[in-house]
Amino acid sequence: MAKQELKKEIWVPWMNRVLHLASLAEGQTSPNPLVGAVILDSRQNLVGEGFHFAAGDHHAEIEALSQAGKAAKGGTLLVNLEPCCHHGKTPPCTDAILESGLSRVVVAVKDPDPRVSGKGISCLERSGVEVVTGVLEKEAAFLNRAFFYRIRTGRPWGILKWAMSFDGRIALPNGSSKWISSPKSRKQVHALRAKCDAVIVGGQTVRTDNPLLTSRGLSKIEPLRVVLSSSLDLPEDARLWDIKEADTAICFGPESSKKLLEKLPKGPEKILLEESSPKRLLETLAEKGCNKVLWECGSSLATSAIKQNCVQEIFVYLSPKLLGGFNAMTPLADLGFTSMDQVLTFNDVSLFKVEKDLVLNVLVTRDV
Amino acid sequence: MAKQELKKEIWVPWMNRVLHLASLAEGQTSPNPLVGAVILDSRQNLVGEGFHFAAGDHHAEIEALSQAGKAAKGGTLLVNLEPCCHHGKTPPCTDAILESGLSRVVVAVKDPDPRVSGKGISCLERSGVEVVTGVLEKEAAFLNRAFFYRIRTGRPWGILKWAMSFDGRIALPNGSSKWISSPKSRKQVHALRAKCDAVIVGGQTVRTDNPLLTSRGLSKIEPLRVVLSSSLDLPEDARLWDIKEADTAICFGPESSKKLLEKLPKGPEKILLEESSPKRLLETLAEKGCNKVLWECGSSLATSAIKQNCVQEIFVYLSPKLLGGFNAMTPLADLGFTSMDQVLTFNDVSLFKVEKDLVLNVLVTRDV
Repeated sequence: MAKQELKKEIWVPWMNRVLHLASLAEGQTSPNPLVGAVILDSRQNLVGEGFHFAAGDHHAEIEALSQAGKAAKGGTLLVNLEPCCHHGKTPPCTDAILESGLSRVVVAVKDPDPRVSGKGISCLERSGVEVVTGVLEKEAAFLNRAFFYRIRTGRPWGILKWAMSFDGRIALPNGSSKWISSPKSRKQVHALRAKCDAVIVGGQTVRTDNPLLTSRGLSKIEPLRVVLSSSLDLPEDARLWDIKEADTAICFGPESSKKLLEKLPKGPEKILLEESSPKRLLETLAEKGCNKVLWECGSSLATSAIKQNCVQEIFVYLSPKLLGGFNAMTPLADLGFTSMDQVLTFNDVSLFKVEKDLVLNVLVTRDV
Repeated sequence: MAKQELKKEIWVPWMNRVLHLASLAEGQTSPNPLVGAVILDSRQNLVGEGFHFAAGDHHAEIEALSQAGKAAKGGTLLVNLEPCCHHGKTPPCTDAILESGLSRVVVAVKDPDPRVSGKGISCLERSGVEVVTGVLEKEAAFLNRAFFYRIRTGRPWGILKWAMSFDGRIALPNGSSKWISSPKSRKQVHALRAKCDAVIVGGQTVRTDNPLLTSRGLSKIEPLRVVLSSSLDLPEDARLWDIKEADTAICFGPESSKKLLEKLPKGPEKILLEESSPKRLLETLAEKGCNKVLWECGSSLATSAIKQNCVQEIFVYLSPKLLGGFNAMTPLADLGFTSMDQVLTFNDVSLFKVEKDLVLNVLVTRDV
């Protein structure tokens, strides 16, 4: 094994701690990434740690440095993402690192943000700080897959979730669906919402289910509740129109009737999209700072989202029930496949059990 | 703990061996049950064992006794089902047991067959043989659930199997379905067929899939391949019409057109049912000696089978794929439910992974 590789392995346990710290703020930092930091003194004792809690708050490095104080001198900083070298809402972290007298910085993965991307590392190296890179690189990229994806594509990472019975139904023929999954599964969905920046449904879901779509207080910042509706045929009363608990945005395309526009409820924000499509919606949500969104819509919108490459990950809550049916109460509508060679196939399925339900999780976008 | 209970526990390890022996002939013994036997001499050494291999062959007790010979004297016979006391295709086992000089018989469960039910045990006790009952009783009843169910209801135990994608589809809109599940899953289905006495499809499956429905040689006695067709609108050529590899039966009701009847292929047996329904079909198959049948049909027939209580167990092969669709390519059609309180719900799901597929197994009939 090469010397550099051996060196890297030494840092793995601490970098795992860094990733854990970073993950604590999941759903709270957008448009920023998840970042954690650990500082060891020159004798490898832990003297500081922290994580980025929310956009505008201190960066993780600064949190850790303020804990470490003078003990940072000659020590090592471990951080999952390359430190920034530009003035954003806060000053560059590289300045603070150089001032602290740290002699080594261990980075998991380079920041894909073009304002940083390698510049943070070279700034440190030019000033004589030893920089070790690529420690738990894949794991760090995976943790920030939503941020990375948004930087790369200009759209947030999309998660599609549905609950279905063993016979693949998401509702009875008459529309009843409360509840297919278990109480504990539904709580888990609240936690999933807490990790997302927006939750998206179509007009049909508002009309049929009248959902609340919050994390039930699990998230300090509730995700934005988004209704994508081309028809604007929305009920006068809906739980989503009450924005005391969480913000709501109604999004529509230029074809929407002005008459219906005037009838929209007052509370929610109204957003005119270039086109009423999943892709345009996600571009707009990225501009609003969303890294990760959750599709909780019916089969028609879910299918459009998949077709427009707006779904990167899927959660299926599978409940040991048989519903039966004759109409399209299925999770997806037509994907246009005419041969089994064309169907979407997944390699790795994460599987967990929640009470009597099975939860299947697959990545649609493998390149994270 | 009472004395009798302590005694019973002693026999558990040997009875587990008996159940294993019995299970070796799964799918081969119908209409008979699965039976295994172990003989210990008076010093508890194993001196004989055996199982019932096929109807007409020796019973398990006789197999084990012939191995044990004189060593059986003063020894113990362990058998999962109460020994028979009547003349069937072979003489009563109780006679052979008494002749052998065995001093104790340990039985897992009473034979529900009214010709035996308790009579075997009392015959032995009257002759001075100590009889211990109820050792692994539940496990033994579960192993022979198909036989028990047929005796109780006059119909074989029905297993319904389907393969579907993560979005609950069993085929593409154009009917393509080769293959949803993995090669290893399909082999496992061959093994499942080997454990059944008949495999049932509807005319639609013959027309669309032209299946072979054999165990691919895994079973010495291939299951009877059954086509239930009320319309008798069947293709002239189909792999099922070639009965070299396995027998086929075409079953239909009195309403079937005589014209189409004349056009049926020559090889398969033709069976006129009182009514072209799952229930009538299973009654007929029970009369033909089937304990366990496998429904490998499309959604329409599967739904009728469930509604008529002809499905006692379900296997779902769930493949990590998305197919999409707009028409009824779902495992089940309408079950007539109008409220979520009515849906079929299962308590215990057995889950296993076969390559990338998940296999879900549930009992619909809990009373086994």
